[in-house]
Amino acid sequence: MILDQGYAHGGDIYSQPIRLDFSANVNPLGTPEAVKAAVRACAEGLSAYPDPYCGPLREKLAAVHGVGPQTIVCGNGAAELIYTFAAALKPRQALLPVPSFSDYESALRAAGCAPVLYPLSRGNGFLLTEDVLDHIGPKTDLVLLCSPNNPTGRSVDKALLLKILDRCRETGTWLFLDECFFELTDEDRAFSLTRELKDGDRVFLLRAFTKAYGMAGLRLGYGISGNRELLKDMGRLVQPWNVSTVAQAAGLAALDCPVWPKKARELVQREKPFLRDGLAARGFTVLPGDANFLFFSGATGLYEKLREKGVLIRDCVNYRGLCPGDCRIAVRTHAENEALLGAVGEVTGV
Amino acid sequence: MILDQGYAHGGDIYSQPIRLDFSANVNPLGTPEAVKAAVRACAEGLSAYPDPYCGPLREKLAAVHGVGPQTIVCGNGAAELIYTFAAALKPRQALLPVPSFSDYESALRAAGCAPVLYPLSRGNGFLLTEDVLDHIGPKTDLVLLCSPNNPTGRSVDKALLLKILDRCRETGTWLFLDECFFELTDEDRAFSLTRELKDGDRVFLLRAFTKAYGMAGLRLGYGISGNRELLKDMGRLVQPWNVSTVAQAAGLAALDCPVWPKKARELVQREKPFLRDGLAARGFTVLPGDANFLFFSGATGLYEKLREKGVLIRDCVNYRGLCPGDCRIAVRTHAENEALLGAVGEVTGV
Repeated sequence: MILDQGYAHGGDIYSQPIRLDFSANVNPLGTPEAVKAAVRACAEGLSAYPDPYCGPLREKLAAVHGVGPQTIVCGNGAAELIYTFAAALKPRQALLPVPSFSDYESALRAAGCAPVLYPLSRGNGFLLTEDVLDHIGPKTDLVLLCSPNNPTGRSVDKALLLKILDRCRETGTWLFLDECFFELTDEDRAFSLTRELKDGDRVFLLRAFTKAYGMAGLRLGYGISGNRELLKDMGRLVQPWNVSTVAQAAGLAALDCPVWPKKARELVQREKPFLRDGLAARGFTVLPGDANFLFFSGATGLYEKLREKGVLIRDCVNYRGLCPGDCRIAVRTHAENEALLGAVGEVTGV
Repeated sequence: MILDQGYAHGGDIYSQPIRLDFSANVNPLGTPEAVKAAVRACAEGLSAYPDPYCGPLREKLAAVHGVGPQTIVCGNGAAELIYTFAAALKPRQALLPVPSFSDYESALRAAGCAPVLYPLSRGNGFLLTEDVLDHIGPKTDLVLLCSPNNPTGRSVDKALLLKILDRCRETGTWLFLDECFFELTDEDRAFSLTRELKDGDRVFLLRAFTKAYGMAGLRLGYGISGNRELLKDMGRLVQPWNVSTVAQAAGLAALDCPVWPKKARELVQREKPFLRDGLAARGFTVLPGDANFLFFSGATGLYEKLREKGVLIRDCVNYRGLCPGDCRIAVRTHAENEALLGAVGEVTGV
C-alpha cells in the first residue's frame, strides 16, 4: 500500500477520471471468461483460510514449465516476490541496469542495498550489450534483469542472456530475471531461462498472471528457482497465507486457457506496427519493443494533455535515466489504439 | 506461502478430508451475502491494478473508528501487517507473552529479533497479570499483546491494558496490540485501544476482516497507528499493490454490514456455555474464553481421533508453553457444536 498521493506507477485509474488506460501493460483482451467464472465461484467458501502451500497451483505450474513443484514459489503478485527475494538475499552488491521497473530498486533499498546502477544507452535504444559482462565480478552478489525490459520493451538477446548466466555461474553471482512479459512477447523474441535452471543454481525467474491473463486486480505471481535455500528463506519472511483463495482458483483457471495469451500476442504483433507508425507520423521517436507495450519520446506535455482528455499513458520521467517527453503505452485493441492515436493527433495537431 | 508440508496453523482443510472445521477462528455465520455479491461483481474489472492507496476503504475505516484515514494502513490480511510491522521496527528487545499466535515470534525472528518470552501461567488460566509491568523497561523496544489472546481466549483486563499503555509511554516502548477478535468478543469483555491513540504515539493496533466477516480466503487486515514514521517505514517495505481489488471491494461491502459480527457475537455468547459444559462433562478442563473460541485441556490423542472422523480442531501442542492434550476449538453454530460434542463423546466414550 502507498500511504500518500504521489503515485509513481502506471494503472492509477482511481485518483483521476480515465476513459482509456494505456498506462498498465496488461493483456489487451482482458481477463478470460473462465477466470471470471472462477472468481465468481469463490464467493462461496471465503471464510476458510487459503491453502498455505498453494498445492494444486504449484503442481499445475510445475507441469506447465516442466519443473518440480518444489521449485515454484507463489506470491501476492510478482511484485511481492521482488521484495521478498531482495529481503531474503540481502545482497551487498547488486547490479541493476536502468531504466527499469522502479520496484527492483525500491525492494533492494528496503533490504538495505543501494544498487550499482548500470545505465543503458539511449544511443543504442537502451539495448543491453556485452559490455555488461565486464561489470559482473566475484563481488557482484546479484544481477537483476527484466526481459523484455520495462519500460523500454527491449529484450535481452538470447546469446547474451546465456553468456550472462555463464558469467554469473563463474562468479557465484545471483541472477534475478523478470520474465513477466514472456507470454505477450513477439514469438521470435521470447526466450525464457526456465530450460536452463539447475538444482541449487543461483537463478530466480519471475513470472506473473497479471499481464498474460489480465489479472492485475487479483495479485498472483510466481517464481521459479532450483535454489532450495533461497526459497526457504523467502518463505520465512512472509505470512503463511499470502496468496488468496481467489487468486489460487483464478490461477488454476487461467492455466486452462493457454490460448488466451497467444491470441493477445497475435493481436499485439498486429497492432504494434500500426501504433508505431501512427506515433512516428505524429513526430515521436518509437523504440522497436518486443513486448506488449511501446516506448517513445518526443515533445513534452503529452501525458498531461492526454490526461485532460481522459486518456492515461505512462509518463516515464520518474524512471532513472529517462527524461521529460519519454512515455510508454500498452498495445491495446485496434479500436482503442485508433482512439489513442486520434487523441495524440489532437494534442500534436498532426 | 509455506514451501513444505508440516503446517503449524489451524484451518488446513486442504491436505486432509475434513467435514467439520473447528480449527479456524472465523465467524460461525460465514460471509455476509453483500460481501459475496461484491466478490462476484469484481469478476469484471480484474485486469486493472488495485488502488494502491486503498483510498475509499481507508476513508470508510477511518469513519468507523473515528480516526483520520492517514492513521490506517491496509494489508494482505492482518498476518502480512505483523511481518511488515516487525520488519519496519526491527526491535532489539521485544517482550512477547506466550502462549500466543506463533507468527508474532516468526515475524520478529524474520526481522532479526529473538523475543524475550514472558510465560503466562497455566495456574491462573494464562491470564496476563500486573507482573508484566515489571518486565517493561527503557530497554524494551516493543511489547506484543493479543487480546483476547490466541489460543487461550483470555483478554487483557481493561485496567491492566491502560497501565501497560502508560508504562510503555513512560519507557518509550512500542505497544503492538492485536485486536483481531474484537468484534466477536463478549460485549462486556471487549475493549479496544482505538480511543486512546495519540498523534505520534508508539502504538499499533491490528484489526482484520478475516474473523469478523468470514473473509479469511480474501486476505484483508488493517492497522491503526498515530505514528506516521512507522507507517511510512512499513509502506517502503511492501509492494504498492498488496491489497487486491477484490479484498478492497469486499471490505467496503463488509463495513456496510455492522450487524453481521454482532449477530455472530450473540450466537457465540449463547453457544459458549453449551460447548464449555459439554466438554467439561466429557472430562476436559475448559478455560473461560472471551472470544469466539475455547481453549481446553485433557486426554491426549483427541486431535488425531477427531481428524479420523473428518473433524478438525486445533492441536495446540506446537504453541510455546503448551503441551499434549491442549486444544482450541472455534465456537460455531448449534448444530455444528452438537456434532462436535457428539464426535468428542465417541472418542472419549462419555
